[in-house]
Amino acid sequence: MGRPVYEGLKVLDVTNNYAGPMAGSMLADYGAEVWHIEKPVLGDDNRFFPPMIDGISINYCTSNRGKKSVVLDLKDPRGAEAFKKLAAKADVLLESYRPGVMKKLGLSYEDLKEINPRLIYCSISAYGQTGPYASRPGYDVIAQAVSGIMEMTGEPDGQPTKIGPAIGDWMGALNAFGCIGTALYYRSICGRGQRIDISLARSLMWMAAKLDHGITGEVGTRTGNHHSNLAPYGIFTGNNNESVVIGVLSTNLWNKFCDVMGRPELAEDERFISNDKRVANKEILIDLIQEWLRTFAHVSDAVDRLMDAGIPCAKIYNMIDVDEDPHFNQCGWIANMPMADGMTSVRTRRFPADPFEFSEFSAEYRKAPALGENNHEVLGALGYSKKEIDEMEAEWEAKIKHKK
Amino acid sequence: MGRPVYEGLKVLDVTNNYAGPMAGSMLADYGAEVWHIEKPVLGDDNRFFPPMIDGISINYCTSNRGKKSVVLDLKDPRGAEAFKKLAAKADVLLESYRPGVMKKLGLSYEDLKEINPRLIYCSISAYGQTGPYASRPGYDVIAQAVSGIMEMTGEPDGQPTKIGPAIGDWMGALNAFGCIGTALYYRSICGRGQRIDISLARSLMWMAAKLDHGITGEVGTRTGNHHSNLAPYGIFTGNNNESVVIGVLSTNLWNKFCDVMGRPELAEDERFISNDKRVANKEILIDLIQEWLRTFAHVSDAVDRLMDAGIPCAKIYNMIDVDEDPHFNQCGWIANMPMADGMTSVRTRRFPADPFEFSEFSAEYRKAPALGENNHEVLGALGYSKKEIDEMEAEWEAKIKHKK
Repeated sequence: MGRPVYEGLKVLDVTNNYAGPMAGSMLADYGAEVWHIEKPVLGDDNRFFPPMIDGISINYCTSNRGKKSVVLDLKDPRGAEAFKKLAAKADVLLESYRPGVMKKLGLSYEDLKEINPRLIYCSISAYGQTGPYASRPGYDVIAQAVSGIMEMTGEPDGQPTKIGPAIGDWMGALNAFGCIGTALYYRSICGRGQRIDISLARSLMWMAAKLDHGITGEVGTRTGNHHSNLAPYGIFTGNNNESVVIGVLSTNLWNKFCDVMGRPELAEDERFISNDKRVANKEILIDLIQEWLRTFAHVSDAVDRLMDAGIPCAKIYNMIDVDEDPHFNQCGWIANMPMADGMTSVRTRRFPADPFEFSEFSAEYRKAPALGENNHEVLGALGYSKKEIDEMEAEWEAKIKHKK
Repeated sequence: MGRPVYEGLKVLDVTNNYAGPMAGSMLADYGAEVWHIEKPVLGDDNRFFPPMIDGISINYCTSNRGKKSVVLDLKDPRGAEAFKKLAAKADVLLESYRPGVMKKLGLSYEDLKEINPRLIYCSISAYGQTGPYASRPGYDVIAQAVSGIMEMTGEPDGQPTKIGPAIGDWMGALNAFGCIGTALYYRSICGRGQRIDISLARSLMWMAAKLDHGITGEVGTRTGNHHSNLAPYGIFTGNNNESVVIGVLSTNLWNKFCDVMGRPELAEDERFISNDKRVANKEILIDLIQEWLRTFAHVSDAVDRLMDAGIPCAKIYNMIDVDEDPHFNQCGWIANMPMADGMTSVRTRRFPADPFEFSEFSAEYRKAPALGENNHEVLGALGYSKKEIDEMEAEWEAKIKHKK
C-alpha cells in the first residue's frame, strides 16, 4: 500500500444534510484534512437526524466521519473573513447551499478564485447552479420525481414508485467525489482550479431518462417486476414474503429450470416451448414458479438448487441478509466505524464502506467531531489568538440564543 | 475553456454490455483516445441490443461514442501480443470480463504492470475481483437483488420492487469514471499506476444498506410511497395516472396547503392539527389530497398552484416531461449525439449528457465506430504491416465463421 491519495490535501467543507457531507467524508477517508464549517450553536442540520443516541445522530457520525469541526458565523464579516483565509489555503471547497447564498456571503467561486486560483470549488444542489429552477428547494424525493426514475419504477397499472434509499443524495456524493479527483488531475497538469456543478436531479435523470420516442414512436415507461420481452425474468415470491430474481435467457436454461422444479413435462408444454410463448403465457408461468417456490420453507433453499443447476438467480436480500453475507463481509464491503466521543452507549456502527477498491491505498474511517471541536486548532493556525476566537464564539452563541 | 482533461490519454477498453463501455465513452467525451477491443465478426454484445435501426443498435452508438474499434482475437497469441503492445502504451485499461478471464488470457494486472507500471487497470464486474462470489454471473437485476435496494423499494405489504432503469450499470460506470480520475491524480504525485476494482452489486449496496438493527433493534425495510413519520409527504395521484410529490414539513406549510386546496377548515380539523395527528390519519389525508388533485385536468396545474404558495412539490415526470423540460434543456442536461455512419435513417439521438459540469472543459459527444474500423490505424502504429493485419483479420473471421 502507498500513501493515502488525498494526504496533505485541505478541504473546506461548508455542506449540510447528506449529499455534501458524505462527499467530504469520502475525501477524509483517503487522507484529506477536512474542515467542516458549521453554524454556531446548532451546527449541521444532520446533527439532529434520527436515530439519535446519547443526543448524537448516528447518521451525522457516518456522514461527517474523519472531519474537523469549525464553527463560523458566515453572516458576520469576521466569520466570512476567517472563511476566506481558509479558502486561501484550501485545495478543495465543497458547498451545498441553495444557489446564490454563497454569492450573497461574498464567497462565490468568482470571489475566491481571486484569492486562490488553484481552488477546486464543488457545489452540490438539487437543480444545479444555473437555469430557471436553480433557486428551487429540493430534497431527494423531489430529485427522484423530476428525474423520471419514479415514473420508470413499479407496476404499469399502478402508481409510480419512490425508490426506498435516498439515491439522489448518494449519487450526488459519489459524483462529487469522482469529479473532484478529475479536477485534481486536471490541476496537476495545468495548475488551475475550477468550478464543479453537481445536481442531484441531473444525476438521477442521467440514469433514468430514455428519450427515444422521437425515434421509436414509443414513450418509455415502467414495466413492473417482470421483463416485457423475456420470461421467466423478474421477481418471484415464495413463503414469508421472501423473493428471488430469476433470469432464464435460453431454451437450454429453460429445460434445466423445468428439471430443477421437478416438472420436466413443462419443457415440452406448448404454452412455454419458446421465449415468445412464455412471454404470451407469462401470468400462468409466474404462478407455476411461485407455486414451486412455496414448497420451500425459505426462498434461499430454492436459490441453492437453482445455483447448483447454473440458473442465473439471486435471493432478494433483506437487511439481515446484507449484514450477514459472507462475500460482502470478507471483501470489506461492510465496515465498522467509531462513533463520536459523546456517544457512550454505542461505540461503533456497521455501515457500507466506500464502494470501490484501490490497490495502492485504502480508506480509514475515523470518528466525527463534536461541534466546534477544532476551532482553536484551525483558526489558531490562521493567526487568530485564543482570546479572539473565544470572543467571536461567545458573540455568535449569544446572537443565536437571543434569536431563540 | 481549457483543454479537455483527458486529451492525450490512451485508454485500452476491453469491455462489453453497458457499464464498462459507458465508462470508456465518458473518458472519450473528455478527450481520451479510447481503443475499444472487440471480438472478431460479432464485436461487443451490445452491438445487437434493441432497438436496432439499419442493423445498428442505438444503445451501442451511445455507450461506445467517441471510441476507435479494434478487432482482436485475444485467444490467439498474436491477438494477445498486440493487446500487450497496446497496454504498454496505455494510461488506462478498462475491462469487464468475468473475473479470472483476463488472467487466463495472460492479461491480468500482474502480467501488464510488468510491462507498464504506470498503467491504471480498472475492472468492472458484478461481485468484484475477489471473494466467494467473484466468478458468479451477474447482470443489473442480480446486483439490484443482493444490494437490498429491491427490498427497500415498494409497498410494505407488497412485493419488493425492481428499479426500472439499470441503475447498477449506470452507478458502475460513474464509479469507474471517478475512480480513474482519482487514480490519475495519484499517479501524477507518485508515478505509479494501480488496480481499481468496481462491483455493480457493491455500488448499489452502498446506497441501499441500513445495518443499524444491532443498534436500534429495528430491521430496515420498505415504507412505500409515503413517509413513515411525516404527513403529507410522498406521492399523490390525480387524473390520467399523473402523480406529484408533495412534502409538508411544518404547521405553517400545512396551513398554507389547506388554503391552496380551498379547504381552510382542515387547518383547524382535530384529525390533522399536528404532524403526529396527520400521520395517524394518513389514509384519510391522502384521500382528501387526491380528491383535490382530481379537480385539475392535469397534475401540473395543481403543481403550479402549490409552487406559487411555496409548498415543496414536484410533478412526477414522465419521459415526455423530461424531454421537454426547459431547465433540463437550457442547462445542457440533455444532448444530441451523432449516430454511427451506417445508420442512415436516424442521424442523431437525444440522450442524457454526462451528469456534471466542469468550468474548465466540456464534453464532446462523437460518433461510435464500425466494427474494426480502426484496425489498420491503431495496429499499424504498433508496427504491424497492412499485410499482417489483413491476414490476422481474415484468419480470425474464418475461425468464427467455421464455428458457426
